[in-house]
Amino acid sequence: MKTAILSVGTELLFGQIVNTNTVYLSQQLNLLGHDVMYHYTVGDNPKRLADMIELALEDCDIVLTTGGLGPTQDDMTKEIACQVMGDELVMMDDVMEELLAMFKDTGRKMTENNKKQAIMPSRAVVFHNDAGTAPGFALEKDGKYIICMPGPPREMTRMFEKSVKPFLESLSDDVIYYRMIRTFGIGESQLETELLDLIDVQTDPTLATYAKEGESSVRIASKRATLEEAKAAVDDMLEKVRERIGDYIYSCDDEELVQVVCNKLIDRGLTLSSAESCTGGLFAGTVTAIAGVSACFDRGLVTYSNQAKMDELGVKAETLEKYGAVSAETAMEMAEGLHRVSGSDVCVSVTGIAGPGGGSAEKPVGLVYVGLYYDGEVSYRELRLRNTGRKWIRHRSVLNMLDMINKCL
Amino acid sequence: MKTAILSVGTELLFGQIVNTNTVYLSQQLNLLGHDVMYHYTVGDNPKRLADMIELALEDCDIVLTTGGLGPTQDDMTKEIACQVMGDELVMMDDVMEELLAMFKDTGRKMTENNKKQAIMPSRAVVFHNDAGTAPGFALEKDGKYIICMPGPPREMTRMFEKSVKPFLESLSDDVIYYRMIRTFGIGESQLETELLDLIDVQTDPTLATYAKEGESSVRIASKRATLEEAKAAVDDMLEKVRERIGDYIYSCDDEELVQVVCNKLIDRGLTLSSAESCTGGLFAGTVTAIAGVSACFDRGLVTYSNQAKMDELGVKAETLEKYGAVSAETAMEMAEGLHRVSGSDVCVSVTGIAGPGGGSAEKPVGLVYVGLYYDGEVSYRELRLRNTGRKWIRHRSVLNMLDMINKCL
Repeated sequence: MKTAILSVGTELLFGQIVNTNTVYLSQQLNLLGHDVMYHYTVGDNPKRLADMIELALEDCDIVLTTGGLGPTQDDMTKEIACQVMGDELVMMDDVMEELLAMFKDTGRKMTENNKKQAIMPSRAVVFHNDAGTAPGFALEKDGKYIICMPGPPREMTRMFEKSVKPFLESLSDDVIYYRMIRTFGIGESQLETELLDLIDVQTDPTLATYAKEGESSVRIASKRATLEEAKAAVDDMLEKVRERIGDYIYSCDDEELVQVVCNKLIDRGLTLSSAESCTGGLFAGTVTAIAGVSACFDRGLVTYSNQAKMDELGVKAETLEKYGAVSAETAMEMAEGLHRVSGSDVCVSVTGIAGPGGGSAEKPVGLVYVGLYYDGEVSYRELRLRNTGRKWIRHRSVLNMLDMINKCL
Repeated sequence: MKTAILSVGTELLFGQIVNTNTVYLSQQLNLLGHDVMYHYTVGDNPKRLADMIELALEDCDIVLTTGGLGPTQDDMTKEIACQVMGDELVMMDDVMEELLAMFKDTGRKMTENNKKQAIMPSRAVVFHNDAGTAPGFALEKDGKYIICMPGPPREMTRMFEKSVKPFLESLSDDVIYYRMIRTFGIGESQLETELLDLIDVQTDPTLATYAKEGESSVRIASKRATLEEAKAAVDDMLEKVRERIGDYIYSCDDEELVQVVCNKLIDRGLTLSSAESCTGGLFAGTVTAIAGVSACFDRGLVTYSNQAKMDELGVKAETLEKYGAVSAETAMEMAEGLHRVSGSDVCVSVTGIAGPGGGSAEKPVGLVYVGLYYDGEVSYRELRLRNTGRKWIRHRSVLNMLDMINKCL
């Protein structure tokens, strides 16, 4: 189905917030087999909002809106949607009861303007908001739909997942099933080349490649009469994909690399510590962003100065002198020294030149060494990353640290 | 002037990338005094692209487009813009020469389809692209303008800064000058309350408040006949703002708190080290994201386990036993111990409960202690952060660590 996404809110036009709702909805709608034709953003203005909804419905079967459903004067999406779809607003008693219960539960007083939120278009299918007070709804006219959701991302995504997605699925006879295959160490263009014949002849399942912050993914999706058929088709294609790029795959279920690594460590009862130079704590920060990671993560040392490398990790002054702080030898002594002080089962280290300064002809910006201690052995990986900025080099370094741990487990 | 932003690219409709161009342009255009009326996104489709440009120009004086200027078949923004504005495409010799020179400089071979990039609408004002090959341009018809820029953010932002912004300024007789005042420790609504009377009576300079990731900012802008007049008006208003909220201001020139802190440390020749528990390296990662920070940052210890706190920082077992890992006492022993091992002038520590698990009635999720050693003294700050997620609690903790250092310097 042809679909448009309409974001409502003057704050978007000021550039005060990034429109993550539209990215989320575009991804979700594409996964459901919709053709997203347009994104629109309009401010809190009744005339322009009405024009925009009419315009979107000229070309599309469905328009999804976010924002403008709250209790204040500014919020007018419901009123305008109702008017464009030729319906009238009525007080819905069950919605009012839910609202009253919610205010009672949270011990807040319900102000007069909150009652506005129980008034709905008479033909609306109402969607419960379990993270806020403004309900959403779907409204049909002549076989076309407007679906209105609140603007705060947490409210919107929960409502989409629990109510809007099933509603959209109910409009179609087919079932869509997909898996997102995540890889590391292979670029999007190479990935596409490896899978080109599969992509070219695709009708169902379909294959699509995605690139995001240094990683490439493949989505395998199938649309069939039953879930069983769709699953079988996707898993069959997954086997073919695995034959070609199996070495690069780290998850077939859209997990982050850091999550995969932490799960493996926790499952096997192994502990992890890190010693970082150029990434300066980003590795530890990434790992500890995972809830419950205290079960495996012991400590992280950010040994930025040479003195810190010697004090904290026992890196030898001769090693720093002879090979330099950015060298395979230093990376390995860091990993070894970290094991000595922490006793952790897996010890990862990193040292490199993140730039913009500090590079030379011999050791350019982007040269990074990752060291790894595991099971009595120390190894290293040399990276020669493209100098596309300090942030990127640090990010790629952390991914390589995770990949190196993942490969050894 | 009324302005619309039109993003061109099917990948946006798939949700494969976040539309940061639109956020950047919205901010910049608002700063230049434009009213941004609409955001539109459309795929690589000639009919829909043409319709969208016409629609935008019905209501607006200017439409800025990003994307679809490259050399491939998909790229059609230039052709469609030319057609809608009633112009014809011609080969521009000077643009061709620039292109040839660029390919020669980078040692790349110029393919046939690259020549397409030297063909421009005959009335176009051409904008040089110093980060890529596709030039941008402005094209006028009946007093309305289309301004086309390339899609890659790095190319677009550089072109905007160097060429498009001066072009837009040349369309207006007035000069806009603004300063962005950054604060910490005061919420947006309180900020608005403090400045309400100034905001209410504003004509010029104007005041606007912004909230972003736990910090609030105030923009003071003035539009006058000369830069001197605008500057004087803004600085006069800044004094009034400072009288009311001076204690919260850390920058009057839109610098990040971490940059302000690092600049102060480097200027005074002071060294910094950190010891983190709940933030798990985020503080060190944030500090080391600043280029050149090796001049002040010595080391960061992520002492996640109790054992690590004792081993690395000499926190006493009795302290951990009696007060717990999340306590003022532990935070202060961490900061003190860090000074002992590192000798750094400023030593900051943090311990807290980031959740989702680990909280109790006495010590809920969001309870965080920041410790600070400076100039022979140890102090601490207790935070009781709202439990709006692990990521948020960690982020707020890092900001408080920076703020505490900033206040002591």
